[in-house]
Amino acid sequence: MTTLRPGRLEAFSDGVFAIAITLLVLEISLPEGAGDDLLGAFLDEWPSYLAYLVSFATIGVTWVRHAAITHHLDGVDTTFVRLNLGLLLLVSFLPFPTGLVAEHVHDDEAERVAATILGLNLLLVSAMVSTLWAHAVRRGLVRPDADDTEVRLLAQRLTPGLAGYVAMILLGLVLPIVAVLGYLVIALALLIPAGLRRVRSIPLPQRNENDEGPGR
Amino acid sequence: MTTLRPGRLEAFSDGVFAIAITLLVLEISLPEGAGDDLLGAFLDEWPSYLAYLVSFATIGVTWVRHAAITHHLDGVDTTFVRLNLGLLLLVSFLPFPTGLVAEHVHDDEAERVAATILGLNLLLVSAMVSTLWAHAVRRGLVRPDADDTEVRLLAQRLTPGLAGYVAMILLGLVLPIVAVLGYLVIALALLIPAGLRRVRSIPLPQRNENDEGPGR
Amino acid sequence: MTTLRPGRLEAFSDGVFAIAITLLVLEISLPEGAGDDLLGAFLDEWPSYLAYLVSFATIGVTWVRHAAITHHLDGVDTTFVRLNLGLLLLVSFLPFPTGLVAEHVHDDEAERVAATILGLNLLLVSAMVSTLWAHAVRRGLVRPDADDTEVRLLAQRLTPGLAGYVAMILLGLVLPIVAVLGYLVIALALLIPAGLRRVRSIPLPQRNENDEGPGR
Amino acid sequence: MTTLRPGRLEAFSDGVFAIAITLLVLEISLPEGAGDDLLGAFLDEWPSYLAYLVSFATIGVTWVRHAAITHHLDGVDTTFVRLNLGLLLLVSFLPFPTGLVAEHVHDDEAERVAATILGLNLLLVSAMVSTLWAHAVRRGLVRPDADDTEVRLLAQRLTPGLAGYVAMILLGLVLPIVAVLGYLVIALALLIPAGLRRVRSIPLPQRNENDEGPGR
Repeated sequence: MTTLRPGRLEAFSDGVFAIAITLLVLEISLPEGAGDDLLGAFLDEWPSYLAYLVSFATIGVTWVRHAAITHHLDGVDTTFVRLNLGLLLLVSFLPFPTGLVAEHVHDDEAERVAATILGLNLLLVSAMVSTLWAHAVRRGLVRPDADDTEVRLLAQRLTPGLAGYVAMILLGLVLPIVAVLGYLVIALALLIPAGLRRVRSIPLPQRNENDEGPGR
Repeated sequence: MTTLRPGRLEAFSDGVFAIAITLLVLEISLPEGAGDDLLGAFLDEWPSYLAYLVSFATIGVTWVRHAAITHHLDGVDTTFVRLNLGLLLLVSFLPFPTGLVAEHVHDDEAERVAATILGLNLLLVSAMVSTLWAHAVRRGLVRPDADDTEVRLLAQRLTPGLAGYVAMILLGLVLPIVAVLGYLVIALALLIPAGLRRVRSIPLPQRNENDEGPGR
Repeated sequence: MTTLRPGRLEAFSDGVFAIAITLLVLEISLPEGAGDDLLGAFLDEWPSYLAYLVSFATIGVTWVRHAAITHHLDGVDTTFVRLNLGLLLLVSFLPFPTGLVAEHVHDDEAERVAATILGLNLLLVSAMVSTLWAHAVRRGLVRPDADDTEVRLLAQRLTPGLAGYVAMILLGLVLPIVAVLGYLVIALALLIPAGLRRVRSIPLPQRNENDEGPGR
Repeated sequence: MTTLRPGRLEAFSDGVFAIAITLLVLEISLPEGAGDDLLGAFLDEWPSYLAYLVSFATIGVTWVRHAAITHHLDGVDTTFVRLNLGLLLLVSFLPFPTGLVAEHVHDDEAERVAATILGLNLLLVSAMVSTLWAHAVRRGLVRPDADDTEVRLLAQRLTPGLAGYVAMILLGLVLPIVAVLGYLVIALALLIPAGLRRVRSIPLPQRNENDEGPGR
């Protein structure tokens, strides 16, 4: 395990993120006999599209955060690899609760259960990303030349979502659809970094690395 | 987010494109009891194959255009990452309307609805690719050494599809199958660049980059 | 399109090959009520496993041949990109006829139809790989430093499968299961290169490239 | 075949591992009518989650071991490529027996059969990884600069699982659920290397390779 290159961990993780995000669409389907009024049946399925959006946005933002984390690493230890597999497990599981919300949302009681299960899954994903970064910082896996401000900013950006998920899960016991909307807001909010900086991702001195970067 | 390498954005996007294009086949299935006359049932399913072809060609051409865009970038900003996730969302969704066309094409009314939904999805994919490139040019994310003619050509090649999709969506309200054929023609047309140039993709001076390029 | 790096074409193609080969398993399923005699139902499904094996071996060998082709390229033109998309289309389609064989193999008439459709798909995949390589050689996309013997060997290795597929498809009209076995034999035969050479894939002088190769 | 770069073999294998591990979730589904008591139905499905965990952990650890193996290679021969395709075949097949365990676990007789089939699949995966490494060592595909202790450690770590799987398969004939739990324990145990070393995966002298490593 001491011989796992961060690059290969990234490649494998990217694969899982990309597949999980693309499999979500398989959870959307119209009921039998939808052909009689296809437009009506299509529009009626809006909770499916909402659940799809929520999980897509969450996996998307998780991928962005994962990319930011591994970008700052200069090595991984066995615990990091195991925590990373745990994160991928939680992300891969998301299509299942997404499907539950998509299917049961017109039924009041089942709606509550499905929204809660989805919320717990999203909460665990978010908590695991934070754990991953905390572990990397604590064990000194972060590149010595990483900007201290950026390292702190990353940790800050990783935490506020957790409180939001807990609040939404509780709200979901009463108003499940509102909670699902709340999950979407949290994911979108996490996509907007504090300062909305317009700087290029690769500053000029690193230009050479960039040249090789996309050269896969 | 300021630390996302274009290479990792490419890798993740390639993954989503590859998965979405390969999942399309799952939307094709023969009805129950097809075994009694399998050849007849297989041939009868031709609208499924047409829908499969349309979505395959569209995702294929979108991938080619995406590759051309990211090739000219020397960095990405947060808006680019978010627009890119929006594009992947629209591409990942395609198997669903593809399945609608495949399923409902022998039913006149449902056919119209399915063809329109598919057309709107294709239109949005095309519009998003253009937005992505416009954003990159406007924010100066394009490499300073990129050929001006090529940059302009890329923008030109990205626009004509939009008008075509609008025309086909309107036509589809009357003749849905013809519209689906039209979507295929648009995708194939976008695969044929104006000049049909026979030059190699990597000219000799860049040969070194090439050596590393495939070396992933 | 003149800006597509061979490396990105490889990455996208590898993705499609990997997904198509892994989706095959979804075509295997036991009939309803299999739980009463699960072992019997599992063993009874042997034609599914045979079809799975055939398609897995064919996609596997196609990937190996594709890797050999792109390894010798120093650039791609637009026709190559389009032919490559055509190959990926045919490969992505394979899970569908694989499923047909898996489902209908206990029914004599349907068996014949399913085996023929699968055979035609395999034949087209094989023909497309040959076309791809022929195009690359004709248009001078092959690296000038590529070994002439290897280039000729590659073409030779690519052709014999075609005759085999035609023979098996004809045989399948009478003995479908034997034909499916024949498809498997062809794929396995293509995996065994003439000389069974034991040389390492990367000779010492190229060692440096190798160091970077896996470093994705 | 003599021209297959280890990097491309890694990329393709990573793709198959990532897809197989993510497809597992599709095997989880609640029975018809689960909406009446969704929480009960969700909790009742616990054997599905256990089977999901087992296969996820096994594919995860197989990926880690595969990464360790290919990291030490400086070339591949045709037999290695074929053995590697065999490993991918066995890994891709895993979602099927995982689904069998998930579906039939409340039925005593079927449970036994499903647990045995899953165990045999896991055993074959583990045996194939060992075979792959044994072949690489025997044929001198391992880098000359590879640390001898590490090479021996890798072989040691690869073997103990086999005996465990045999024991669990036999146990599963009597207590299938306990056997499935045992499969999970074996996978988790294989994730914990002997010394639990905290060293960074890429020591400083290799830092340059690392810089390029993730630069895909």
